[in-house]
Amino acid sequence: MTHRSEGQDKLLFTPGPLTTSRAVKEAMLRDLGSRDTAFIETVRRIRRRLLELAGVSQQRGYEAILMQGSGTFGLESVVSSTVPRGGRILVIVNGAYGERIVKMTHVLGLDTRVLRYEENTPPDVAEIRQALAEDPGITNVSVVHCETTTGILNPVEDLGAVVRQAGRYFFVDAMSSFGAIPLDLEAAGIDFLVTSANKCLEGVPGFSIVLARRTALLATEGAARTLSLDVQGQWRGLEANGQFRFTPPTHTILALEQALRELDEEGGVAGRAARYQANHAALVEGMRRLGFQTYLRPEHQSYIITSFHYPDDPRFSFKAFYERLCEKDLVIYPGKVTQADCFRIGNIGQVFPEDVERLVTAIEQTLEEMGVSLVSTPTASSA
Amino acid sequence: MTHRSEGQDKLLFTPGPLTTSRAVKEAMLRDLGSRDTAFIETVRRIRRRLLELAGVSQQRGYEAILMQGSGTFGLESVVSSTVPRGGRILVIVNGAYGERIVKMTHVLGLDTRVLRYEENTPPDVAEIRQALAEDPGITNVSVVHCETTTGILNPVEDLGAVVRQAGRYFFVDAMSSFGAIPLDLEAAGIDFLVTSANKCLEGVPGFSIVLARRTALLATEGAARTLSLDVQGQWRGLEANGQFRFTPPTHTILALEQALRELDEEGGVAGRAARYQANHAALVEGMRRLGFQTYLRPEHQSYIITSFHYPDDPRFSFKAFYERLCEKDLVIYPGKVTQADCFRIGNIGQVFPEDVERLVTAIEQTLEEMGVSLVSTPTASSA
Repeated sequence: MTHRSEGQDKLLFTPGPLTTSRAVKEAMLRDLGSRDTAFIETVRRIRRRLLELAGVSQQRGYEAILMQGSGTFGLESVVSSTVPRGGRILVIVNGAYGERIVKMTHVLGLDTRVLRYEENTPPDVAEIRQALAEDPGITNVSVVHCETTTGILNPVEDLGAVVRQAGRYFFVDAMSSFGAIPLDLEAAGIDFLVTSANKCLEGVPGFSIVLARRTALLATEGAARTLSLDVQGQWRGLEANGQFRFTPPTHTILALEQALRELDEEGGVAGRAARYQANHAALVEGMRRLGFQTYLRPEHQSYIITSFHYPDDPRFSFKAFYERLCEKDLVIYPGKVTQADCFRIGNIGQVFPEDVERLVTAIEQTLEEMGVSLVSTPTASSA
Repeated sequence: MTHRSEGQDKLLFTPGPLTTSRAVKEAMLRDLGSRDTAFIETVRRIRRRLLELAGVSQQRGYEAILMQGSGTFGLESVVSSTVPRGGRILVIVNGAYGERIVKMTHVLGLDTRVLRYEENTPPDVAEIRQALAEDPGITNVSVVHCETTTGILNPVEDLGAVVRQAGRYFFVDAMSSFGAIPLDLEAAGIDFLVTSANKCLEGVPGFSIVLARRTALLATEGAARTLSLDVQGQWRGLEANGQFRFTPPTHTILALEQALRELDEEGGVAGRAARYQANHAALVEGMRRLGFQTYLRPEHQSYIITSFHYPDDPRFSFKAFYERLCEKDLVIYPGKVTQADCFRIGNIGQVFPEDVERLVTAIEQTLEEMGVSLVSTPTASSA
């Protein structure tokens, strides 16, 4: 049962911006003053609800902060505001989004250590434990929860236990997982988490979300390298009078409030997870039936976004494939894996199993149009 | 003639977010993929049109860059990306927004020099010429065009001539003036200008706009202190394939496209200026009639936002005044002047002289309700 707009737009099978509900977009048909009581109350409700989704609350020592700009701005707000002066950050990398954090730390001039893993392989928790034991100078550790590069799901709970035991700050980029993959901030030992309004929460883009353990937030005060991205400053502003330090994206914040209402109606994180799992199952089952192979082993694969190998046929061109699907009003996503030719299909946003089946049918038809054939024998990597 | 929404929201007499047209908000009822051709074309058109509004073009060596985040993020993108390593910035200050740039340069650790003027006084161009002559280490000069603190209009053309002659980079914060106060980037000798989608352009908040002289942009490459706010990197991304480096606020960008269409229909900058001037005239005339005094001398006053002294009556409380006007669905703005008790009234956005008259009538009624009396003798500062 969908509640989307009346079909003027293509259906987005991407990691975001996503297809959102009509009501989420209609929530933007208002002009609220940024100091207006109604707006301030909206921001309060959103901040409280975001903590609940992470299994925590202000009473239990956690804070939710909204930060203007895209998800990357939110990540950089944490990276640039929570690594103490003279500190060192260990960045765990197994994809492009981990690499982006490395790039950030370099531009910011932070003392950085990197542990890299193959894009199809989760980080080695024991190795990270050892790295922390051997290098007491490491103050912060970062990892990506669901690497959108491939769709791999990293073991943040196990990592959190190790980082907490070592007494370092643990930062999780949960951009494309939060709201659909259950995660308890306290149980996972997470000090800072960043996500976006326009991924599994199904809002529209315009700001990011930082969740933080209050004592970690306070302890890293003074570390900010910029004014705009100062996460402690942003929090203090919101706490002081409910207002943002700098103009908030009022309309997109109203959209998130509606999106959170719809998340509740769907049964919260569990309900959303169930739909995305059904979407993902329909996708993988359908694509395998056509002969496609997934890039990741199933045990590492999230139910958010999936990388598929190109068909092994010279008549296949991703550009032509993509454009023909676009003509059918279906948008997929290019690959980002460095070692293999892949494309990606997201199954988050206001899409449902019947949409996924429509996509698979359109893909089958498109391959026929292109004269591309697929060998449907499963291989090791898709077994 | 207004085209606003059907009265569910209060009318905003603030410096933004503003009351926007219904069609601007309705432009957000779409979900476009950020790599979608339709979206990329929208961004191209917007960037071209923004340069035209500044009297320049790509052919003439200028570039328009959209930057995620509020206006302050845009300002910090220029401040953090265009002061060369080892450079020094001279910040001209006569209000809170100039002070904000100083705060930014301090957090960023930039070598900073500040020239401060009274909040009711424009900067002294001769003094700035001399400061540049005496200090060859100054590489960049910044000034605010219309200081929203008071509404004062600073002489950016005169300053531009001086800065250009001295061979330094000239940066103008034109947040609340661009689109309604004519300004030719080339004639004014401006290297970098920042404005917002949600001020005189009458879009909604969510991103800011950087206009830049291309040779200055290229010459300052490598100066960026962050990844997200790297203005040259953002430009290179947009030039490479029309796409943003990081998720753009697709919906609010669609809103700006519609807002720019409406600006054209109103007769461009000249047409918008005419309406705002009429709004401003109605406001000042009406408020003077009630006995209010403006904070600024008329010759320094912009037609964007106006600061009024509190009535000299102990029965006046700004909080009560503000709330009573809110109850009448009219939102004004607190003062920000440090040396005098003032409140501010903006007259930008989808407001028209008849709305201003309605506001003045409501203010008169509110003062009566509060039992506040005003002496209507004009004084020097309102002469």
